[in-house]
Amino acid sequence: MQLESLGEFALIQRLAQLLPAPSAEVVKGIGDDAAAVDLGDGRMLILTTDMLVEGVHFDLSFTSPRDLGYKSLAVNLSDLASMGCGPGYGLISLGLPPDFEVEAAEELYRGLGECAEQWGAQLVGGDTVSSPAGLVINLALTAIMPAEIMLTRSGARIGDMVMVTGNLGESALGLELLKRGMTIEGDSGHALIKRHLRPEPRFSVGGAMKAAGATAMIDCSDGLLADLRHICEASEVGAVVEADWLPISDVARRVADELGVDAVQAALSGGEDYELVITMRPELAEEAAARLNLTPIGVIVIASEGMKVADAQGHTLPVESPGYEHFREEA
Amino acid sequence: MQLESLGEFALIQRLAQLLPAPSAEVVKGIGDDAAAVDLGDGRMLILTTDMLVEGVHFDLSFTSPRDLGYKSLAVNLSDLASMGCGPGYGLISLGLPPDFEVEAAEELYRGLGECAEQWGAQLVGGDTVSSPAGLVINLALTAIMPAEIMLTRSGARIGDMVMVTGNLGESALGLELLKRGMTIEGDSGHALIKRHLRPEPRFSVGGAMKAAGATAMIDCSDGLLADLRHICEASEVGAVVEADWLPISDVARRVADELGVDAVQAALSGGEDYELVITMRPELAEEAAARLNLTPIGVIVIASEGMKVADAQGHTLPVESPGYEHFREEA
Repeated sequence: MQLESLGEFALIQRLAQLLPAPSAEVVKGIGDDAAAVDLGDGRMLILTTDMLVEGVHFDLSFTSPRDLGYKSLAVNLSDLASMGCGPGYGLISLGLPPDFEVEAAEELYRGLGECAEQWGAQLVGGDTVSSPAGLVINLALTAIMPAEIMLTRSGARIGDMVMVTGNLGESALGLELLKRGMTIEGDSGHALIKRHLRPEPRFSVGGAMKAAGATAMIDCSDGLLADLRHICEASEVGAVVEADWLPISDVARRVADELGVDAVQAALSGGEDYELVITMRPELAEEAAARLNLTPIGVIVIASEGMKVADAQGHTLPVESPGYEHFREEA
Repeated sequence: MQLESLGEFALIQRLAQLLPAPSAEVVKGIGDDAAAVDLGDGRMLILTTDMLVEGVHFDLSFTSPRDLGYKSLAVNLSDLASMGCGPGYGLISLGLPPDFEVEAAEELYRGLGECAEQWGAQLVGGDTVSSPAGLVINLALTAIMPAEIMLTRSGARIGDMVMVTGNLGESALGLELLKRGMTIEGDSGHALIKRHLRPEPRFSVGGAMKAAGATAMIDCSDGLLADLRHICEASEVGAVVEADWLPISDVARRVADELGVDAVQAALSGGEDYELVITMRPELAEEAAARLNLTPIGVIVIASEGMKVADAQGHTLPVESPGYEHFREEA
């Protein structure tokens, strides 16, 4: 059987079953964005990794090596932020084509360094090897956090509010501008492109979510609906997202119009916004929303309801794409 | 400038300078086999990573996916053993070509699982992505160890004995058998091939070395001379290796003869034996050698002497290859 017919998520599940069962201190293992190991002293060891492959995850024709370095680290830091964890220690593996320019490798490292400095991460080691077929970047991060503030994908309960930090859809619109080589009057286009190239891990609020009443959390990397589905599956619940509640900026709406795309679909399925998606105990939602600048976007319902997007009239909206999955053709 | 004209080690040095200086708790950073972070409670957080690229690090025409999985983890565990650390928690990133067979991916995971089980490591997460141009494997390990038993490349002192666990050259001879598709009468060939495909991290003795009087330690991955050079550079010393003292098994000598290669050169430069190379306070060397089953192979001298290999008559032997380095043509 070839990978294309199975898809990423089914493959990971199938592969994970072939490993020895982890011991009891491993409280989150394969399948979550990050693994958690209980250190037994009230602290958790958090580990996460991401591999980025040229032609799959990035395109050097419109991403500079410097932005690529920045983003490679930022998206991994976002996996830590999505558990309520702070920045930690990073290892960077680079697979470089032999004809790759030293100056480009240096720019990539400068971007890594800028990101590490901005968010307080430490790059402590790595591996640099030749890769005949193209650039490959692997980041692996380790951090230690208080167990009591950790959140994962599981824990959402029926009746919880679904909330999100920041605005949605901007990264996908920025990517579309880059792909089309378009410029937009004023700073609007630049802001969206920056959202795509230099995502910001939400450390400022991630660590406060548990105490504020959050029951589950994930970062929005594959697209809101795909990531909310991860929460629903891990928590064995369903969700209704209210399209009219989605935080879509005026800039995003204007750029979407100019591009001729639907800003709501970009917010639902665009991906790579790296905002946090949180489920929150309903009685605490209002206070948390005001204090942590969150937008309510829906509610958690029973599992049999599945995942739905409703418009203002309560009608179910069609959803274009369930989010990116490796090995499968895109919808 | 292109990478080929710079070479791996110079590149890593150049890139590391572009990162912000790590903070004080990072006691070993980029350049060592593993990074060490002082946790402030008498323990060290150890982090290491390795990227393996198809066509550079492995050849699926004579390495089964299962052996490849085993070895990918084993060589990373060896980096932990080389600091006196035990097995820890691992993250596995796989970049898989879209036409890769699911069954081959499963075999690779079975090999990973066998290695994890044998050495007590825990695989707790990873990333699985598509990689159009070939298989890429990245392992990242994290472990916590007592600071007082940690050893690194630096610390070797003039007059120290250089010692090694096990036998040298066997992995390179096993690889040569695989490359030539040769079989050898009896079990000899099989034993050497196993040394190449299923290396054994030396956890059993690594953690005891500091207390036994070791001053520096490294695992023998690039080749004895290349790895001993890493110790010499980090410790600012030189070394004389006695060719006649090298631990070369009868099996290795016999197979080398059949292959028409020099068993001593295989021991000096072959690489991938994953034995530990230790420098040891001379007054403790005899007792340590007997108790931990080590072979003395030379002495540490002043830096200006450089690195030399001497024969029984005290003549300096020529050295064929300084060990493998990425991006450079092999000598």
